[in-house]
Amino acid sequence: MARAIELAIENVRAGCGGPFGAVIVKDDRILATGTNQVTSTNDPTAHAEVVAIRAACAALGTFQLDGCDIYTTCEPCPMCFGAIYWARPRGVYYGATAADAAAAGFDDAFIYEQLVMPPQKREIPFTPLMRDQALACFQAWAAKPDRINY
Amino acid sequence: MARAIELAIENVRAGCGGPFGAVIVKDDRILATGTNQVTSTNDPTAHAEVVAIRAACAALGTFQLDGCDIYTTCEPCPMCFGAIYWARPRGVYYGATAADAAAAGFDDAFIYEQLVMPPQKREIPFTPLMRDQALACFQAWAAKPDRINY
Repeated sequence: MARAIELAIENVRAGCGGPFGAVIVKDDRILATGTNQVTSTNDPTAHAEVVAIRAACAALGTFQLDGCDIYTTCEPCPMCFGAIYWARPRGVYYGATAADAAAAGFDDAFIYEQLVMPPQKREIPFTPLMRDQALACFQAWAAKPDRINY
Repeated sequence: MARAIELAIENVRAGCGGPFGAVIVKDDRILATGTNQVTSTNDPTAHAEVVAIRAACAALGTFQLDGCDIYTTCEPCPMCFGAIYWARPRGVYYGATAADAAAAGFDDAFIYEQLVMPPQKREIPFTPLMRDQALACFQAWAAKPDRINY
């Protein structure tokens, strides 16, 4: 966690993005690190945890973080929370809270609120469309004998 | 949406990843597309919406999708939901539902359940650590006069 904090502060000073850092540890060694690179790479998904998860998976050559722990300077936003669940590490350690992030001007808490609202009442409207046709995607998946589950 | 469905089905047949596609439209034109590439790129964050958002932002040279609409073959998982909120498009149209995705074997609904649980009761335990020290990251951010908000 001390290293993640150090990386986050360096990231701000270098002008690479927001004040967030993450470190992924496996077998007591740092496997990968990440910092927020949203504004320097024009990638709204380049949060510290996402950057670190991608780097760790690249290092391991797999899309799963079995036996890994993630240390992040702030409680993950919903995007990073989802990324963590898809990567399936062993555990997560976080420094500041989502409320701290909100107080510092970040949308984390707002996005958590929006998530539990009915789709059409959200600030960004979510509209259902062509569900019957879209189910063909899942039918194609079920019909593929050599599919790789994830 | 028809194009997103077509891309998702092609993606399954080509063995590139899961049965999901997304198309981002601006000014009545397709700006970017994405399909799930988790297993072919060893990137658990490479969901269709995330891939499409990254491509659209790269095409626009910005980290915001002002005036864009996202068409996705399935209701976004929490990761993609968060990515959408950070990218701030105008609207989202989705085909299948999160329940449809769960029925097809994907974790979307499970992750939505986990999000609203207390951090230490989750299947992946979330443990607070060194909050006081971590707040220094936000102090560095507040002290940076030329910071770029996102």
